[in-house]
Amino acid sequence: MILIGFDPGLGTTGWGVIAAEGNRLSHIANGQIKTDSKAALAARLVALHEALCALFAAYHPGAAAVEEVFVNTNPQSTLKLGQARGVVLLAAAQTGLVVGEYAPRLVKKAVVGTGAAEKTQVHAMVSRLLPGTKIAGADAADALAVAITHAHHLATARRIPT
Amino acid sequence: MILIGFDPGLGTTGWGVIAAEGNRLSHIANGQIKTDSKAALAARLVALHEALCALFAAYHPGAAAVEEVFVNTNPQSTLKLGQARGVVLLAAAQTGLVVGEYAPRLVKKAVVGTGAAEKTQVHAMVSRLLPGTKIAGADAADALAVAITHAHHLATARRIPT
Repeated sequence: MILIGFDPGLGTTGWGVIAAEGNRLSHIANGQIKTDSKAALAARLVALHEALCALFAAYHPGAAAVEEVFVNTNPQSTLKLGQARGVVLLAAAQTGLVVGEYAPRLVKKAVVGTGAAEKTQVHAMVSRLLPGTKIAGADAADALAVAITHAHHLATARRIPT
Repeated sequence: MILIGFDPGLGTTGWGVIAAEGNRLSHIANGQIKTDSKAALAARLVALHEALCALFAAYHPGAAAVEEVFVNTNPQSTLKLGQARGVVLLAAAQTGLVVGEYAPRLVKKAVVGTGAAEKTQVHAMVSRLLPGTKIAGADAADALAVAITHAHHLATARRIPT
């Protein structure tokens, strides 16, 4: 199964695509979608949506996941993030995908083993779990971590039929 | 010119369509898009996007406007609002419209004459400016107020060529 993970943001949205066969994970691609901070908000959201649609068309993921939001203390930042996140959720659902959402603590626990892990530890573990991967940046690393978390979650769900 | 105004929200998005010929305004339609609070977030955003696309197809507006956001003290509410607002801005821009954004104070000033007006005064003035209009609810009234503000703004911009 091919999974895509996202770390949404208005300025930069990280994405990471992995393949999961049983417990075996492999890297397919990762990157960061950047929008022009000088462009109008609506135009930036359109650019983000188009880039996301291109990703779904290129990799045909069977599952998608997004990190739950760390709600910023700055309400204007929270609003910006919300607007970008809405477009990511929309684009994924429009292609027919059910979108998993994971709290940052859960992502850290799945990847590093502790919910209190530092960002650099997450980055290092993503590199170890997907050896040889060139990671486009911090947001792409987070997105790969979300994809790995989703793969673990789906594998566990398959082992415990309800 | 046909203008559409929006008051975005995840649960309820108000919309209002008016026609402006010079200083003469007339009502075309208004309503409220509601999404199922029991559905998944991504599915609600898809439902909102589809309803918005249907509006653009039905009324062919030449201009669109959205109220700038009153940033809530509750960050989770701000995030929800941001997600819905992102989808509204996206849908409008995808149809090729430039989206005007107006601060709540500016909308109140344009419609009632004072930025400190109460919500009920705005509602009453919208009814007076667009006589005979049956308003679908408080969010639709706000959306019509935004459309009226945008019409005033565009008329003023035409009188003062830059």
